[in-house]
Amino acid sequence: MTDNTLIEHLVTSLRCLPGVGPKSAQRMVYHLLGRDRDGGRILANTLRAAMDDIGNCRLCRTFTESELCALCVSESRDPSLLCVVETPANVAAINRGTDYNGRFFVLLGHLSPLDGVGPGHLGIDQLKKRLDTGDIREVILATGSTVERQATAHYIAEFVRERGILVSRIALGVPLGGELEFVDSGTLAHALSGRGEYR
Amino acid sequence: MTDNTLIEHLVTSLRCLPGVGPKSAQRMVYHLLGRDRDGGRILANTLRAAMDDIGNCRLCRTFTESELCALCVSESRDPSLLCVVETPANVAAINRGTDYNGRFFVLLGHLSPLDGVGPGHLGIDQLKKRLDTGDIREVILATGSTVERQATAHYIAEFVRERGILVSRIALGVPLGGELEFVDSGTLAHALSGRGEYR
Repeated sequence: MTDNTLIEHLVTSLRCLPGVGPKSAQRMVYHLLGRDRDGGRILANTLRAAMDDIGNCRLCRTFTESELCALCVSESRDPSLLCVVETPANVAAINRGTDYNGRFFVLLGHLSPLDGVGPGHLGIDQLKKRLDTGDIREVILATGSTVERQATAHYIAEFVRERGILVSRIALGVPLGGELEFVDSGTLAHALSGRGEYR
Repeated sequence: MTDNTLIEHLVTSLRCLPGVGPKSAQRMVYHLLGRDRDGGRILANTLRAAMDDIGNCRLCRTFTESELCALCVSESRDPSLLCVVETPANVAAINRGTDYNGRFFVLLGHLSPLDGVGPGHLGIDQLKKRLDTGDIREVILATGSTVERQATAHYIAEFVRERGILVSRIALGVPLGGELEFVDSGTLAHALSGRGEYR
């Protein structure tokens, strides 16, 4: 009944954003049109630039606008530590939340034979080449803890060990400040079987 | 610590959307970059076009890409009924949710002396001219029910009545399916004092 095809297109387009349903998309459209056109224009330009110009780091595969990301270029980071994660978001999380000061390698996924995701998609050859440079002293596996992700970690651990490099795994256990009664039983079982001496 | 200035810009730009905080903005960015670049590009283009090309209908002031909106152009709508609302979103809501088949007039706000919003900002002259054409038989006031919005309705009602045109107000009361105990007392008082004969 309305001619506002452009408005409707915008509502539809906004729904490519995760967590945005028809109602919030509509709210966004009316907000931008009525109160923040400049914000909308800036968003449009930044979005366009980001979609076109952001690629993957040649060395660690995280997102970057350059050939190499800042973390790979940085002189101040320990080149003998390599943390293997699944996504660029994981890199950002570890970088923001911890004092980890080594390098990263981003798998951009995890082994998932049913979805046709094999070692080729995860840059495993690239990772092996990196290990073969002889710079790496320890590989920290920071993949998630579902079955497929554990399998991915296991698969990587095998060929890292073959090269005589130390492999470690981020600790799985009860989160800090977590109430035991609300922790799922899998995590609880892990935390119990993986208990360490009290110091 | 990262070079991903474009990623950071995009996270910041997304926050112009209502309801999007730093965490969801970041989630959106990684989703678009990793899984939906095409969606992101389409969104960027649509957004750009919408911000630049959508203006206000010359007659009713709702959002439209054309000089006149579809509702004002439509031959099938009753030209003797005029519903006055505050926002284009209200037009969409009434149009979608009811069988109202008259025309609209959008104030794009409500009287708010403290914020410097006076009759000039609400297109009151335009509304008066419209009333003076003699086409309008009834003006339906569909502004909200806060004090300022009620005052706006009152102000409009005055000059509509002066012109011998019928003024009505959308009913204020308990929502359909609403539990009495959860309805705020203002609404409840309104519903009680505005009670009608049982038919």
